[in-house]
Amino acid sequence: MSEKIPYKIYLTEDEIPTKWYNVRADMKNKPAPLINPGTGKPLTLEDLAPIFCEDLNKQELDNDTQYFEIPEEIQKFYKMYRPSPLVRAYFLEKALGTPAKIYYKFEGNNTSGSHKLNSAIAQAYYAKKQGLKGVTTETGAGQWGTALSMACSYFDLDCRVYMVKCSYEQKPFRREVMRTYGANVTPSPSMTTEVGKKILAEFPNTTGSLGCAISEAVEAAVTSEGYRYVLGSVLNQVLLHQTIIGLETQTALKKYNIKPDMIIGCAGGGSNLGGLVSPFIGEMLRGEAKYQVIAVEPASCPSFTRGKYAYDFCDTGMICPLAKMYTLGSQFMPSANHAGGLRFHGMSPILSQLYHDGYMEARAVEQTAVFEAATQFARVEGILPAPESSHAIRVAIDEALKCKETGEEKTIVFGLTGTGYFDLVAYEQFNSKTMTDTIPTDEQLAESFAKLPKVNL
Amino acid sequence: MSEKIPYKIYLTEDEIPTKWYNVRADMKNKPAPLINPGTGKPLTLEDLAPIFCEDLNKQELDNDTQYFEIPEEIQKFYKMYRPSPLVRAYFLEKALGTPAKIYYKFEGNNTSGSHKLNSAIAQAYYAKKQGLKGVTTETGAGQWGTALSMACSYFDLDCRVYMVKCSYEQKPFRREVMRTYGANVTPSPSMTTEVGKKILAEFPNTTGSLGCAISEAVEAAVTSEGYRYVLGSVLNQVLLHQTIIGLETQTALKKYNIKPDMIIGCAGGGSNLGGLVSPFIGEMLRGEAKYQVIAVEPASCPSFTRGKYAYDFCDTGMICPLAKMYTLGSQFMPSANHAGGLRFHGMSPILSQLYHDGYMEARAVEQTAVFEAATQFARVEGILPAPESSHAIRVAIDEALKCKETGEEKTIVFGLTGTGYFDLVAYEQFNSKTMTDTIPTDEQLAESFAKLPKVNL
Repeated sequence: MSEKIPYKIYLTEDEIPTKWYNVRADMKNKPAPLINPGTGKPLTLEDLAPIFCEDLNKQELDNDTQYFEIPEEIQKFYKMYRPSPLVRAYFLEKALGTPAKIYYKFEGNNTSGSHKLNSAIAQAYYAKKQGLKGVTTETGAGQWGTALSMACSYFDLDCRVYMVKCSYEQKPFRREVMRTYGANVTPSPSMTTEVGKKILAEFPNTTGSLGCAISEAVEAAVTSEGYRYVLGSVLNQVLLHQTIIGLETQTALKKYNIKPDMIIGCAGGGSNLGGLVSPFIGEMLRGEAKYQVIAVEPASCPSFTRGKYAYDFCDTGMICPLAKMYTLGSQFMPSANHAGGLRFHGMSPILSQLYHDGYMEARAVEQTAVFEAATQFARVEGILPAPESSHAIRVAIDEALKCKETGEEKTIVFGLTGTGYFDLVAYEQFNSKTMTDTIPTDEQLAESFAKLPKVNL
Repeated sequence: MSEKIPYKIYLTEDEIPTKWYNVRADMKNKPAPLINPGTGKPLTLEDLAPIFCEDLNKQELDNDTQYFEIPEEIQKFYKMYRPSPLVRAYFLEKALGTPAKIYYKFEGNNTSGSHKLNSAIAQAYYAKKQGLKGVTTETGAGQWGTALSMACSYFDLDCRVYMVKCSYEQKPFRREVMRTYGANVTPSPSMTTEVGKKILAEFPNTTGSLGCAISEAVEAAVTSEGYRYVLGSVLNQVLLHQTIIGLETQTALKKYNIKPDMIIGCAGGGSNLGGLVSPFIGEMLRGEAKYQVIAVEPASCPSFTRGKYAYDFCDTGMICPLAKMYTLGSQFMPSANHAGGLRFHGMSPILSQLYHDGYMEARAVEQTAVFEAATQFARVEGILPAPESSHAIRVAIDEALKCKETGEEKTIVFGLTGTGYFDLVAYEQFNSKTMTDTIPTDEQLAESFAKLPKVNL
């Protein structure tokens, strides 16, 4: 590390990875297969075909191929907004007075405001390749919906977005960005689907959840000719596409001979976390390196730290496949009180397996502490972070402060997944000191766990 | 141009310019001096001292020093968000089917969302160096106010922002970003100043203007101990700081042996335009090169194309110095109908002189045409542009389409000053087809010109 580390490490366009990394190929314990809730058997390509795009299904079920070539058209699109910088947080280090060296991979420099575009463009590409008319999806905080709108606009595909109602209301301008890119946006639950009608009949005042919105989007896809459903998180294919984050991070670190001790990411469904950490965990799986990997989740939706590792539906409507994952139960409704994304009841099956096998630890943090970290970060590093990303900032700051106490010069890398420009309602609550924390009680979780499906394999 | 041009040209941090360029040093006809409205004589450092910061006043009045060393602390801050990329608009070129080669210098990758931070950090630095408690300012679209909030937060200075009322209402979230960075924001005109009270008494329903807000901010500064006024545009010092844009652009172009034919920028008060084009016009002034330089302004506030080149007040309240500039009259109120910034009645005296001397041409464009260009650009280049920046996009597209007709392979460089994430009310109007254009009538302008101050020099 003789060379001076710049504030921002940018790769050249030639250094952008041309392959995605499939961590499953290196996992001794593969993630448990998705189960067809009708037959109780592992899902096949035929089962998936009516719901998802063909090529994506192959990626979904492939536990063996270590690297997937990124199609040229996607590589080209990546150059529109990638490489993303790996930033040395000199200003934050100084403000904290820590001997730790802090880096963050910043994925927010594009109009979707987050890393979601990495998978959106891949999924839109394969949909177009299959000759589809359009795709349906759900969005929570709105980042995935925006990313998909941008990707569909690029490939001239129709894009129908079901947006979790509380986000739709909290983030009025998100809808307008999606419209500018030509998408249709419906607040969920809605009366446009059978499952939406059913949920509204049972819970008329619900503010929605990702689980509900997924059910609606899936129903809309399977009942419309020439449409498929696409998803921005949880799935193996999404983690695959998102490894561009971790691979770029590795390349940037290697360029300056930096060896991280700790990799930190926020965890909702796992798209950012999996994308960032998979290539590093791959090194651990192959016995080449050892890292402390930390998943950070909201205390209001704590699937890793308080969930069960069990088969569960990916959606509230219980029409999606069953996945073995850390889950709070598909009927768990996170408090509307919680700002931003990370509201999904479950977790990526790949990350669930890796966590179960001890390759990661997890921490749950409360949102007022998260916004304190967000504000501190914004004021010294200049970037107004998304609430989701700020979960990772919180723990990165905590770890850097521990280093201050112990004097350890640890190298911390965290994922800064996006910007908070559409989260100003939440920032306003924090600035006005009206923000509160909500943590589910043990009774609430027990009630939710009691509704887990019974699956024996 | 044998080397392949990447999608984004990033300079290394060592290549970021360490000096600002003062175009006045190369101008044969210097911009006319600012006039003290009390004495009718050119302003001296003593006149300026109660209003502006000391070192900034020296920069303001210096017509001779060709380059100013950028203080180390500012250079360090620049590395937080600079260098900004010079982007080759391959996607836009393809969509237009033009043989033209289009580049844009993108200044929006920071939380202020624009180039304004380049001067904000410089002005905050000199205020801190002088030992001041805080600064006051006005903001139109909110980008300058956000930038100044960020800069003041970095140097722990108090920041009081008067925000043009129609922007305050159109952009509720801007205020929250400024608050997150610790600023106080007041809609202007307000009852907190004498000039605000006077304007409200005369025009109770006014939606404000930059001119009003400037008057209020200046009054607040001169009546508060330890405060000075800072301004995000128009002034010579601001253009000086903003030359970092043009200098970086030149360095990036030279790196790949690219010779532009045309430089295009949007024009409000002149901060972006001046910053981008000064170094290029410098080459013209020194007889080293020839470029077509185009200023693009809104048809609703057309100071270059329909204004008078005359001495005028910089503010509506007529308490600021007089500047010789292209002006619509300090009493001209641009329609509230117009989205975003570029609402200033006057123009930078430096740019006014250069325009008067034939180094630039100017075009006025209507906002519906501007938003058409913005949407087209967003869909292919991925970035949702600010309405201000989209004025430059409009003319860049028009020029690229002319090349398509003539077959000319011109190289076009334009300034993409910022992002439109806080302009979604305007995008919504455009998407809903409720946006209209407003162009002042000749009678309105004549009435405004009649109120120009009588100054003989």
